[in-house]
Amino acid sequence: MSDELLIKRQPLAAGFVETWTLNAPASRNALSDGMVGALLAAAGRARGDAGLRGVVLRGAGGHFCAGGSLGGFAKAIGQPLAEGAADPLVPINRRFGALLEALCALPQWLIAVVEGAAMGGGVGLVCCADHVLAAEGAQFATPEVTLGVVPAQIAPFVVRRLGPTAARRWLLTGQRHGAAAALRDGMADEIADADGLQAALNAAVARYAQAAPQAVAATKRLLLEEREQPLPDLLDAAAQLFAQSLRGSEAPLGLAAFGARQPAPWSMSP
Amino acid sequence: MSDELLIKRQPLAAGFVETWTLNAPASRNALSDGMVGALLAAAGRARGDAGLRGVVLRGAGGHFCAGGSLGGFAKAIGQPLAEGAADPLVPINRRFGALLEALCALPQWLIAVVEGAAMGGGVGLVCCADHVLAAEGAQFATPEVTLGVVPAQIAPFVVRRLGPTAARRWLLTGQRHGAAAALRDGMADEIADADGLQAALNAAVARYAQAAPQAVAATKRLLLEEREQPLPDLLDAAAQLFAQSLRGSEAPLGLAAFGARQPAPWSMSP
Amino acid sequence: MSDELLIKRQPLAAGFVETWTLNAPASRNALSDGMVGALLAAAGRARGDAGLRGVVLRGAGGHFCAGGSLGGFAKAIGQPLAEGAADPLVPINRRFGALLEALCALPQWLIAVVEGAAMGGGVGLVCCADHVLAAEGAQFATPEVTLGVVPAQIAPFVVRRLGPTAARRWLLTGQRHGAAAALRDGMADEIADADGLQAALNAAVARYAQAAPQAVAATKRLLLEEREQPLPDLLDAAAQLFAQSLRGSEAPLGLAAFGARQPAPWSMSP
Repeated sequence: MSDELLIKRQPLAAGFVETWTLNAPASRNALSDGMVGALLAAAGRARGDAGLRGVVLRGAGGHFCAGGSLGGFAKAIGQPLAEGAADPLVPINRRFGALLEALCALPQWLIAVVEGAAMGGGVGLVCCADHVLAAEGAQFATPEVTLGVVPAQIAPFVVRRLGPTAARRWLLTGQRHGAAAALRDGMADEIADADGLQAALNAAVARYAQAAPQAVAATKRLLLEEREQPLPDLLDAAAQLFAQSLRGSEAPLGLAAFGARQPAPWSMSP
Repeated sequence: MSDELLIKRQPLAAGFVETWTLNAPASRNALSDGMVGALLAAAGRARGDAGLRGVVLRGAGGHFCAGGSLGGFAKAIGQPLAEGAADPLVPINRRFGALLEALCALPQWLIAVVEGAAMGGGVGLVCCADHVLAAEGAQFATPEVTLGVVPAQIAPFVVRRLGPTAARRWLLTGQRHGAAAALRDGMADEIADADGLQAALNAAVARYAQAAPQAVAATKRLLLEEREQPLPDLLDAAAQLFAQSLRGSEAPLGLAAFGARQPAPWSMSP
Repeated sequence: MSDELLIKRQPLAAGFVETWTLNAPASRNALSDGMVGALLAAAGRARGDAGLRGVVLRGAGGHFCAGGSLGGFAKAIGQPLAEGAADPLVPINRRFGALLEALCALPQWLIAVVEGAAMGGGVGLVCCADHVLAAEGAQFATPEVTLGVVPAQIAPFVVRRLGPTAARRWLLTGQRHGAAAALRDGMADEIADADGLQAALNAAVARYAQAAPQAVAATKRLLLEEREQPLPDLLDAAAQLFAQSLRGSEAPLGLAAFGARQPAPWSMSP
């Protein structure tokens, strides 16, 4: 476990929830190599962790994430590459895209809590969440183009989250958006004031906890496939997932609880 | 004609409109095998019915549709399949997807009127409509994951209707959404109170009746193709549809009526 | 330069902005062959114009654009084509789609200012803009189906702009939408009253001017590719664009200005 990513595991009915806290407050949790590596490791581990039901992603010190740190690139900035040389910047940048792919492919639900700044790559992280809870003072922006840089790895994830029209506005101007604008454009799902943030997070966790873990994992896989496959093929695959879920261990518990008007074993008691 | 699906045909300028009423009020119009079969038959017949201009889909007894009935699956729930056996659940589930495909491919416009509950598969039906009129007290939900079941066939249609961001929220939590939330998220197009529901439906029918039937059919085909084809191919096919529509029987009538400031023959008189 | 399209070029920090004014006020700037040709020529020229940073598209005489003129088709309307003959309507219609493709592929940002009517093909033009500023009295509609004609070339662009759900409503009814409805449905990004229109346009230009031209061009290419490529391939290509932008001439200027808390050379002074 890295100092740059704090992982706290807590029980949640029939399993666990983890809080992943980006922890480099001096840089407003900028995405250093170390932090990206720690997130990739956490996502890789979560993928095979059957007891883990969901992840809350947030930042330490009042900010979510200031985005990619360009400091490591200082020597390359403005320096054309020697003819025929492989550019070391390419795999570094692509690695962040691999992190976003891994976060979007988590079999668990992912809730992002955004306080303060979510900038550049930080917005990329936000786009991977199933639910985005923004504090009232949150500020979102993808300022890359204003610096002469392409918002390369995050652009596809912004389009997937906002749709192509709002994504153009965000990515091509680099303007800042407060929590209300983020809600309106679809970047945030919910806003809470500072006093109500923890209660809103607890309520969101309780809401997602209503869902059975294996059913969530299968549904997330289906949603990920939705863009990649023609509809009839997708529906064929979906029918297999349906049958497997009905024959699995969760459906009998869920249907019995529903019939008895009791909470399912994976639900938080009210 | 089935008792579970009542079909009422009424004249509508230069053709007909049909009201398809899901009719199993004791089960809040749950989607039995019989009802799915009747809907498939109705959609198949509508496909070749040149006089039919539009369909209104609604439910009897104050509810739209409670979704798929899991009763018929009782013996399979929680029972793993024998090694190598073909799972009979797969084609049953896939058949509902085929119904949604058929409804989305109707050459006529489809208006859904949602009173009371639209749950699970009922939401799938709603997603196929061109216009969704929700009564004030309507409640929408896809609660499958809370039961340990994958919302398999309906997930792609929810994504197409709501976009991927709101679809995640709906499908992964299974929470209920009132009419106002459904409007905000794009599941409903319009809300009416109980007293105004019939007038709102009449107005929606009159609005859709402004459109020429063959032009509607060609436009719906084009919208269906939009996801499947690269843009240049789509535009090539669209140019053919444009030329056919201009050379067809509707354009001279429509353009003459427009020039004379008269309603077209397919419009409802004001 | 054509009388039907007025092009005015003005300096904009480190380059130029052009205003393209559709100029056939007697027909509310209907899309004649000549006007489509002039727009195609302008878009083709803009593609290779390294000094051009952005384009403002608007109409003369208080309207944006009344759409395609069907006058030239008079002889074909309602006339089936002779067996085996190539239909001259097809390439004429497809040419308008080629214009929309060219506008969407502009490497510069495109701002549409919509006063009065934007109808049919005029809505197609609007859909290609990165930012749509609507005057309070603007009216948008795609009335083709009410005339018995298929909104062929514009349909895919309406879907890309509004998403499939609102696009169905617009294209299948042909109803008019005021500025507020256009904003709600995503056709407009911003509304201004008559007195504030020029100030709102100036502010939008200033906002887009914050972005570095080459970074904008690369980001727009990426957004165009987003629909066409599987995500991993897209991210591979994006990593190349990122590295090129960092090694290019803009990033050092942008990062230095950011570090010095000065405006970048491509920004308008405040």
